[in-house]
Amino acid sequence: MFMRDVIQKKRDGGSLSAAEIDFFVNGYTEGAIPDYQAAALLMAICFSGLSADEIFLLTGAIARSGEIVDLSGVKGTKVDKHSTGGVGDKTTFVAAPLAAACGVPVAKMSGRGLGFTGGTVDKMESIPGMRSSLGADEFIALVNRTGIAVIGQTGRVAPADKKIYALRDVTATVDSLGLIASSIMGKKLASGSDAFVLDIKCGSGAFMGTLADAMSLGETMAGIGEAAGKKVIAVVTDMDQPLGRCVGNSIEVIEAIETLKGRGPDDVTELSLRLASYMICAGGAAGTRDEGYGMAERALESGAGLGKFREFVGGQHGDPRVTEDYSLFPEAAFSEPALSGEDGIVSGVDAALIGLASQRAGAGRETKDDAIDLSAGIVMRKKRGDAVRAGEPLAEVFGSDPARLRIAAETARSAFAIGRDRPARTELIRAVIDGRGPGPLWP
Amino acid sequence: MFMRDVIQKKRDGGSLSAAEIDFFVNGYTEGAIPDYQAAALLMAICFSGLSADEIFLLTGAIARSGEIVDLSGVKGTKVDKHSTGGVGDKTTFVAAPLAAACGVPVAKMSGRGLGFTGGTVDKMESIPGMRSSLGADEFIALVNRTGIAVIGQTGRVAPADKKIYALRDVTATVDSLGLIASSIMGKKLASGSDAFVLDIKCGSGAFMGTLADAMSLGETMAGIGEAAGKKVIAVVTDMDQPLGRCVGNSIEVIEAIETLKGRGPDDVTELSLRLASYMICAGGAAGTRDEGYGMAERALESGAGLGKFREFVGGQHGDPRVTEDYSLFPEAAFSEPALSGEDGIVSGVDAALIGLASQRAGAGRETKDDAIDLSAGIVMRKKRGDAVRAGEPLAEVFGSDPARLRIAAETARSAFAIGRDRPARTELIRAVIDGRGPGPLWP
Repeated sequence: MFMRDVIQKKRDGGSLSAAEIDFFVNGYTEGAIPDYQAAALLMAICFSGLSADEIFLLTGAIARSGEIVDLSGVKGTKVDKHSTGGVGDKTTFVAAPLAAACGVPVAKMSGRGLGFTGGTVDKMESIPGMRSSLGADEFIALVNRTGIAVIGQTGRVAPADKKIYALRDVTATVDSLGLIASSIMGKKLASGSDAFVLDIKCGSGAFMGTLADAMSLGETMAGIGEAAGKKVIAVVTDMDQPLGRCVGNSIEVIEAIETLKGRGPDDVTELSLRLASYMICAGGAAGTRDEGYGMAERALESGAGLGKFREFVGGQHGDPRVTEDYSLFPEAAFSEPALSGEDGIVSGVDAALIGLASQRAGAGRETKDDAIDLSAGIVMRKKRGDAVRAGEPLAEVFGSDPARLRIAAETARSAFAIGRDRPARTELIRAVIDGRGPGPLWP
Repeated sequence: MFMRDVIQKKRDGGSLSAAEIDFFVNGYTEGAIPDYQAAALLMAICFSGLSADEIFLLTGAIARSGEIVDLSGVKGTKVDKHSTGGVGDKTTFVAAPLAAACGVPVAKMSGRGLGFTGGTVDKMESIPGMRSSLGADEFIALVNRTGIAVIGQTGRVAPADKKIYALRDVTATVDSLGLIASSIMGKKLASGSDAFVLDIKCGSGAFMGTLADAMSLGETMAGIGEAAGKKVIAVVTDMDQPLGRCVGNSIEVIEAIETLKGRGPDDVTELSLRLASYMICAGGAAGTRDEGYGMAERALESGAGLGKFREFVGGQHGDPRVTEDYSLFPEAAFSEPALSGEDGIVSGVDAALIGLASQRAGAGRETKDDAIDLSAGIVMRKKRGDAVRAGEPLAEVFGSDPARLRIAAETARSAFAIGRDRPARTELIRAVIDGRGPGPLWP
């Protein structure tokens, strides 16, 4: 088989066979197929697309490119929760403890962030002492003992995805439904969990700009999961403005703790409860979403969720006192307000620009070798629908470099649109796609 | 400027600016832009296409990526003749001496072949002693003295094309009108001639399978030439079956000499006369094509063309006695017939398969470092419309490796379609596109 012929087939609109997809994924992972041929194929895929069968085959090849994590040592239906990446999304730190408090084992594998803010693993590491790197035995023992553990993804899981994603990033081939779906699901199928709740962000601050695109992605991923014998619930949620008020690393964890104490912003609280309810359903601890929602609400109100969060932190060598003493988190030395230039009502907050401002403040990486300033970030003082007066702060930017903060504050200010009229309310949860799984076992 | 943004713009159907095209061509030539980003852009171009403006800009960038040959030392309007590459095409060795004999200076730069047979330079080198590598001064002095010289293209001319073409070859991005046109014309604009006769092969044995595609390519290249202040005449000619009876290197030169002696196959003779007439017109030595054709015919009949061929050979250190003694050429040690399995009439000869058979016999390269067997090739005993009996030879394959010859003969046999009825006659010259040039001077 020649890679040139595989490229040409896809360029001419053909469907790739299982053998051709394996040839590409394995050859590229091993270095036998050069970057330039992979890049040409990826661009041809962006134009010609992938059929449902091809996406399933590609996902399987990516999953099998490395280690398949064996979580059989964990009792019960293991549930993972994954977000396609939004600005200010700290729901994992709320929903996962709530679900675990309701008896659903959460054994989650997370990546580091590349882009606006850190990933879940980076945010976790803003908790003093907390470790995201655990041995397999320790990880499984921890989930069995506390019901929850989150570890960083190692290079041994789905190495094909790591290599393909890096290439897509520099060749403008990121925006392809089939490539996005197989990238996410390839890692998930290799990660060993039985059920997945996928939060697909939709709007200006997300990969998927439109509801239609986000629903297609959700349906595609639910279909892959079903074909692989996994339970998948995909939720399309609003990312036209950042979630909650805090964007960064340590300040997002603090906002999550506040939410677990019942004092969180409405959107973070509501989305976390909904995601927890889907995790509880997917894990089989509740028969209906309403029942799951009620269980999650009680876990929040009773403090069981907060207690589970403290067990989670302690289990991974972090200091559980952070829930009562926020000064234990890295704190920013400087801050800079982003002031409104006019009176009016906030008609929109561009999530992508807030994300960029947060990155400029030091909270995100531009390249994978960049260090993150865990204390840096943005606190939004106004959100969509809030009234504001000229000179009043729209947001406050935190970090350790005053010059960068001034630039970040200017970027944050530009994210706010100020109008005369109260904007229409947008739905936080825009669609739920509930896969029927489990189907036939994968692979 | 970031290459990622240039790729994305083209992927999204945008038009690249002059600055973006220069950024790509110069950056890629210098090695600042990696192969994988170039491959992604080339594939995006295959899908999104290039506008006439973009093709012109890309052509200019390719031409300016290296040395622009200065032929101002040659008196008169220098004419070049270029073929997009066919099977059995030896017309350069007939048309160029005929045009030179009519007073049109031919200063041609040619490449080596990659694919079915050798290129013009390879074929030339089957003449004992003949050299394709001459210094600039010697080249110019030779054209001034004899009116004709052909040299191999150096790496200093249009290096961007060399690099881009090699990448297109392995990434299935060859078949793009804009990329083909800019590749050919980029080299031509850098080669220093004033006028170009372009022979665009059309049919099973050519890049351009259909007349419509071939005409688009011809019109595009004529447009580029015109915009660059060059005279261009593009001719679309049949390549559904090989041209003439000989396919290879030395045997093609022998067939060209036979043609100059008035004993060539009808198709080689007619196409060579027509190409010579266009060269004579493009060079300003005739006012009309009919006048040019008459001049070419007289040069053929009088032997002036053959005499010019001998001057051409002698000028480049070759042995002019080859025109009278073909045993001076490399001769093949072995031959193998391709026999017909049935009685009938040849309804078609697939030029691409004959080309492949010739390559398998040793006449062509698979990779640029392969050596060519200059004696290898195929002599066609039957062509379209000829009657054949079972057991009679359709073709004969020559070379130095009996095992390879048997495979080549089988391939050659498979190129012939045998039917009951006499096939319709096809036109040798299918279209002529006469650019209005010269326009404004380039660049």
